[in-house]
Amino acid sequence: MALIVQKYGGSSVADLQKIRYVAEKVAKAHDQGHKVVVVLSARKGRTDSLISLAKEITPIPDPRELDVLLATGEQENVALFCITLKAMGYDACSLLGFQVAVQTSDLYGKASILKVDTQRILDELDKGRIVAVAGFQGVDEQGNITTLGRGGSDTTAVAVAAALNAHLCEIYTDVDGVYTTDPNVYPKARKLKRISYEEMLEMASLGAKVLEIRSVEFAMKYNVPIHVRSTFTEEEGTMVTQETKDMEKVLVSGVAFSKNEARVTVKRVPDRPGIAFRLFRPLLTQGIVVDMIVQNTSEDGFTDLTFTVPKPDLLRTMNVINEVAKEIGATKVIGDENIAKVSIVGVGMKTHAGVAAKMFETLAKEGINIMMISTSEIKISCVIEEKYTELAVRALHDAFELDKV
Amino acid sequence: MALIVQKYGGSSVADLQKIRYVAEKVAKAHDQGHKVVVVLSARKGRTDSLISLAKEITPIPDPRELDVLLATGEQENVALFCITLKAMGYDACSLLGFQVAVQTSDLYGKASILKVDTQRILDELDKGRIVAVAGFQGVDEQGNITTLGRGGSDTTAVAVAAALNAHLCEIYTDVDGVYTTDPNVYPKARKLKRISYEEMLEMASLGAKVLEIRSVEFAMKYNVPIHVRSTFTEEEGTMVTQETKDMEKVLVSGVAFSKNEARVTVKRVPDRPGIAFRLFRPLLTQGIVVDMIVQNTSEDGFTDLTFTVPKPDLLRTMNVINEVAKEIGATKVIGDENIAKVSIVGVGMKTHAGVAAKMFETLAKEGINIMMISTSEIKISCVIEEKYTELAVRALHDAFELDKV
Repeated sequence: MALIVQKYGGSSVADLQKIRYVAEKVAKAHDQGHKVVVVLSARKGRTDSLISLAKEITPIPDPRELDVLLATGEQENVALFCITLKAMGYDACSLLGFQVAVQTSDLYGKASILKVDTQRILDELDKGRIVAVAGFQGVDEQGNITTLGRGGSDTTAVAVAAALNAHLCEIYTDVDGVYTTDPNVYPKARKLKRISYEEMLEMASLGAKVLEIRSVEFAMKYNVPIHVRSTFTEEEGTMVTQETKDMEKVLVSGVAFSKNEARVTVKRVPDRPGIAFRLFRPLLTQGIVVDMIVQNTSEDGFTDLTFTVPKPDLLRTMNVINEVAKEIGATKVIGDENIAKVSIVGVGMKTHAGVAAKMFETLAKEGINIMMISTSEIKISCVIEEKYTELAVRALHDAFELDKV
Repeated sequence: MALIVQKYGGSSVADLQKIRYVAEKVAKAHDQGHKVVVVLSARKGRTDSLISLAKEITPIPDPRELDVLLATGEQENVALFCITLKAMGYDACSLLGFQVAVQTSDLYGKASILKVDTQRILDELDKGRIVAVAGFQGVDEQGNITTLGRGGSDTTAVAVAAALNAHLCEIYTDVDGVYTTDPNVYPKARKLKRISYEEMLEMASLGAKVLEIRSVEFAMKYNVPIHVRSTFTEEEGTMVTQETKDMEKVLVSGVAFSKNEARVTVKRVPDRPGIAFRLFRPLLTQGIVVDMIVQNTSEDGFTDLTFTVPKPDLLRTMNVINEVAKEIGATKVIGDENIAKVSIVGVGMKTHAGVAAKMFETLAKEGINIMMISTSEIKISCVIEEKYTELAVRALHDAFELDKV
């Protein structure tokens, strides 16, 4: 008998039929003798339609009240889910953010989980009940409702699993696991049996949308094993766990890519201390996240600085940087939306040389120019022209033989 | 400067346009220097559609979880309302049942309010905010969400007003006050300027659907003046207050009627102690509310017993009573759905004789047979054939000159 946390996303609980299907799955785990805590999202599209409703009132709805509105989506679903389980003859109990309680920071719309109380959940489990926790929501110190932002239910699930010291956190979704790359881009993509937290973090932040990034951080911090799998099949998915010796044997685990970035180049920046700070501080204060930064070698006391920002922030970034450029005497600012970032990820890189060389060689062979490079212990990212994205992904997938186990 | 509680019903906040209209009304009261607490219902039809959704799963949804589901209706509306006020430049804060907190019993779907904490509301008012409280919902001692049943938002409003010791509780609705009788039945019906709690209770329980009955009981207990008025006009409505000397001058304040009752007659009941208990106990245990009871004088140790129950409960009542009748040796049970109850209500009756006589005379003149009679200090009710309802209402309205002030 194990204590299991299962999380079902919006497409898995999109209507009453699907809720029934999920209830049967959960009941089965319960019948097998497991203590089951279920974390549910709002039904697919619900959060978006509530946001649209609020935006009919005003373009920027009050964040506290927007969270009160959005929290109803998960509340509806846990109630419908427990009504279903009860009608099937199972004892069940829904718990909302404040009832658990899921304590969060007070940053409405993007709150972080600070603490998950386990008493109420454990009490209900002890009564033999299946517990359904509303994902995505919590309460701050004053008891105000908060939400965790996009994909927040993943984080709720992992945080609840960590607090309960659960044996396993199963994330049920509409894909059946983590792949070596996006199967829509390359059908030869292979489902991974296992992946380390670190690799998953790199894959997630690079655009593989299987797991919300904060949930992986949480899982890594508290060592919660995650099983990412499909709601609609019985097949094993992908285990996300601590790094094992086994994993290191594999050079590269996956190829990730993102088309969501834009590049900004500032020409002839005077190369003196404090210049980078002058440039990036105003972006920071505006909440714009700078990802990669490359600085050319200095010539005659001047240098070129290139960096990437999320594509939706490009316009704001250009406005800010044009101002600063004038102040510091840089000659020109160039923005470019037509870029993509392609990355290879793998814990095996730590102990193997030559991975970077092979990546550059592969791209060169395809005639793809590399605009920027950044590396970490377990990943290498290259910025290339957007139109070559799919070509690069396929070539790298082949070069590192990711279709083979 | 006063502390005012304003309650808006589902038809007053049915969509974003109406919510905006209400927000402007509330903002106006705030601008006049009042501290305003607003209690909102779910939008019209929302509660019913959520119940329907739950009933698609099972005919009798789990009551705890149904309350979790239904509570989202008011939650949505307070959030949308505060988003609107904030967009208008007013500071506002929504509070749900658990945040206030509105403490209730744990009878899901029909919970009673035990206590309303005022600290959080007062804190928000002190910050100059308009406070929007979600009606209809509360939490029990364990923090489970409860709802108060039909019309529960009225009760929330009065309970909040009582706890805050508010100067006034305004109930905004789609009618513009309490009338001497239903204007749809008799266009000569006149809007009352004032009515006592006791009269309002009788009017409400007799089928005038302006105020939820428990809210009037609450108001009477804590002496909260209620102003019932229309959301969509500026006109004064009806004040519901303690009885005043003035009110006693009026013999009859209104004519109420109800077509929602059915009559059951048990023939030749042995007239011995404990028989009534034998008959009515099984109805009590089934939650069937018996309203009027009439027992004929006994002949040869036998009597006929007649009583009324809500029409929807007639079938269940007949099943129960037929069983009991066999056991106690009564000869026959007759059910009759085609009845109505017509009543005249007025605190003046306490001190005036001849009101009953005039009522019976009026009905007799119209050739309407009286089947049952029941009286209280401030009301007289007659059961008559249903088809005569409107005729009786008009005749009584004329006889007591209710169209004149």
